[in-house]
Amino acid sequence: MSNEIVTIAIDAMGGENSPQKTIEGLSMFLQKNKKNDFFFNLYGDEEKIKQELNKQSIKSNNFKIHHTKSIVSDEESPITAVKNSKDSSMWHTINSQIIHNSDISISAGNTGVLFVISRMILKTMKQINKPALAGLWPNKLGTNVVLDLGANIECDETNLVDFAEMGSALYKSLFRDKKPKVSILNIGSEEIKGTETIKKAHSLLKEIAKKGDFEFKGYIEGNKIPEGNSNVIVTDGFTGNIALKTAEGTAKFLTDTLKNIVSENILSKLLISFSYFSLKKFKSKLDPRKFNGAIFLGLNGPVVKSHGSTDALGFYHAIDLCYKIVKGNLMKEIKANLSHLDEK
Amino acid sequence: MSNEIVTIAIDAMGGENSPQKTIEGLSMFLQKNKKNDFFFNLYGDEEKIKQELNKQSIKSNNFKIHHTKSIVSDEESPITAVKNSKDSSMWHTINSQIIHNSDISISAGNTGVLFVISRMILKTMKQINKPALAGLWPNKLGTNVVLDLGANIECDETNLVDFAEMGSALYKSLFRDKKPKVSILNIGSEEIKGTETIKKAHSLLKEIAKKGDFEFKGYIEGNKIPEGNSNVIVTDGFTGNIALKTAEGTAKFLTDTLKNIVSENILSKLLISFSYFSLKKFKSKLDPRKFNGAIFLGLNGPVVKSHGSTDALGFYHAIDLCYKIVKGNLMKEIKANLSHLDEK
Repeated sequence: MSNEIVTIAIDAMGGENSPQKTIEGLSMFLQKNKKNDFFFNLYGDEEKIKQELNKQSIKSNNFKIHHTKSIVSDEESPITAVKNSKDSSMWHTINSQIIHNSDISISAGNTGVLFVISRMILKTMKQINKPALAGLWPNKLGTNVVLDLGANIECDETNLVDFAEMGSALYKSLFRDKKPKVSILNIGSEEIKGTETIKKAHSLLKEIAKKGDFEFKGYIEGNKIPEGNSNVIVTDGFTGNIALKTAEGTAKFLTDTLKNIVSENILSKLLISFSYFSLKKFKSKLDPRKFNGAIFLGLNGPVVKSHGSTDALGFYHAIDLCYKIVKGNLMKEIKANLSHLDEK
Repeated sequence: MSNEIVTIAIDAMGGENSPQKTIEGLSMFLQKNKKNDFFFNLYGDEEKIKQELNKQSIKSNNFKIHHTKSIVSDEESPITAVKNSKDSSMWHTINSQIIHNSDISISAGNTGVLFVISRMILKTMKQINKPALAGLWPNKLGTNVVLDLGANIECDETNLVDFAEMGSALYKSLFRDKKPKVSILNIGSEEIKGTETIKKAHSLLKEIAKKGDFEFKGYIEGNKIPEGNSNVIVTDGFTGNIALKTAEGTAKFLTDTLKNIVSENILSKLLISFSYFSLKKFKSKLDPRKFNGAIFLGLNGPVVKSHGSTDALGFYHAIDLCYKIVKGNLMKEIKANLSHLDEK
């Protein structure tokens, strides 16, 4: 892939403040990435997209606007979405992988509907029983891949094994020079702890790791996730979603508390302004917008879900993630890993 | 209870740096609480306890030392513990509720063994199928009670209902003037989300809330826990343990990152020292030692588990928690709540 053109399909209309933020995010990407080895298919209201493009000083012409008639609302149910959304920017963004040779699709719209549409159009890979939603979390040494984050409430041991292989492939596609190190999220690090499903997955992964796709590090407890000794964290979608949101909530609670205390009186406000750069650096290092973008794995094409409420900078990071995923040959890595499962 | 003497049994030997930290923690309690309406039964190596007591300038004589011969090690398995631990400080601390009229027992030792011994000696309440481990978490408006934190990996809907009643009773015993507001931890706030168990618990709790023991607030997502709109969070022990530890890990990761950035160079170090008081206040407000102490609920007597690695200040807070729980008539509150379950 490294010398080929990366083609990214963007749902310009999904999420809050779109298409303003999506086009601003695109503009940031075009300013920062000078390689010229990419092309964008933009789906949405042509008039509105052009208005936003005019506000940006975009010199690149590496994109094409495809006019679409409707937008999937946040209230749309995944059950009725298939019937209601065939004219939508989201539908066409996914379908772009079929009819316009896009390598990857991105949307900040309704997660449930995006998942249903993606499954319907791209289809689940034949070796995979349940596709998963993977996210990127900062850790002390770099980045964790964590999956599943909520696509599957209940998972058996073969699902967890699939998640380990797909998560490792994602990790390799993003971090070429590093080795994926897989752990199963559990309530203790001893082998006797956990549910039957987890214990079975543990013994399966111990064997499968011998194929060399990843190093298997056993169980990991929630408090060890940030340490970075494992970098692919595997769990069912219920637990993963609770862990992700609890981490988000805790981080927000801490930074809000810090902010409140700092602004409690003028003196502390004045004093803290001296250390402005330290705090700015702190904020920047853990800025959630840098980790924006969850990846649907297990379909015959990658789909990235941006946070609906992120801003232009967050959307830029999700576009950049799409670019890196395709450059890193995610689909090839996944197929290679899954072929090792067939061998067993 | 409010005019009676609170009798607390302390395992002086459990946890790191004991009996130094346990006796120092006790000494802090004796200095701070001037009410003189308490008595302590201390269990452990009499010689060592006396040595530590001599280091403190304790004027109170509201305690008695009971010499015990052994200590439950951190490596002891819950399976063999019953046979091996009958001479231990932990065993006698629990048994103190039977033979020395202690109202509550506290230990910083091996959690699994403490749970097994407590169940064996105090017995599970007849209305309760599975006892639970409850913890206190800070939130923006005060404190959350969260349970189960790991005593039961798998729970059905009746367990979750029991947890709601017991958690509400704990909340009432600690915060007299506030109303318990129960939520079930889930991956979405809509009624259609979650596992079958959770959905069944949701409809049961909706009914039971009419008895007036608590207000039922439906589902809560992990990121909303710190907001304080609910204050009793109910979940199975697997999910609760993952959430607790992920929150702990995230908090540590953030504060470590802040510390590292601040100490990166002399200038920022100097500048941040001006805002020392703000940061100290921040640290103090969310100091995990203030929330030390998990409570076993559902036995015929309350048991508090202190973090093994906490220090004297943390152990002081766990002793203070014991005092407040007994003062707040926890057992009476639990029985009252559970009697409403019988009515249905």
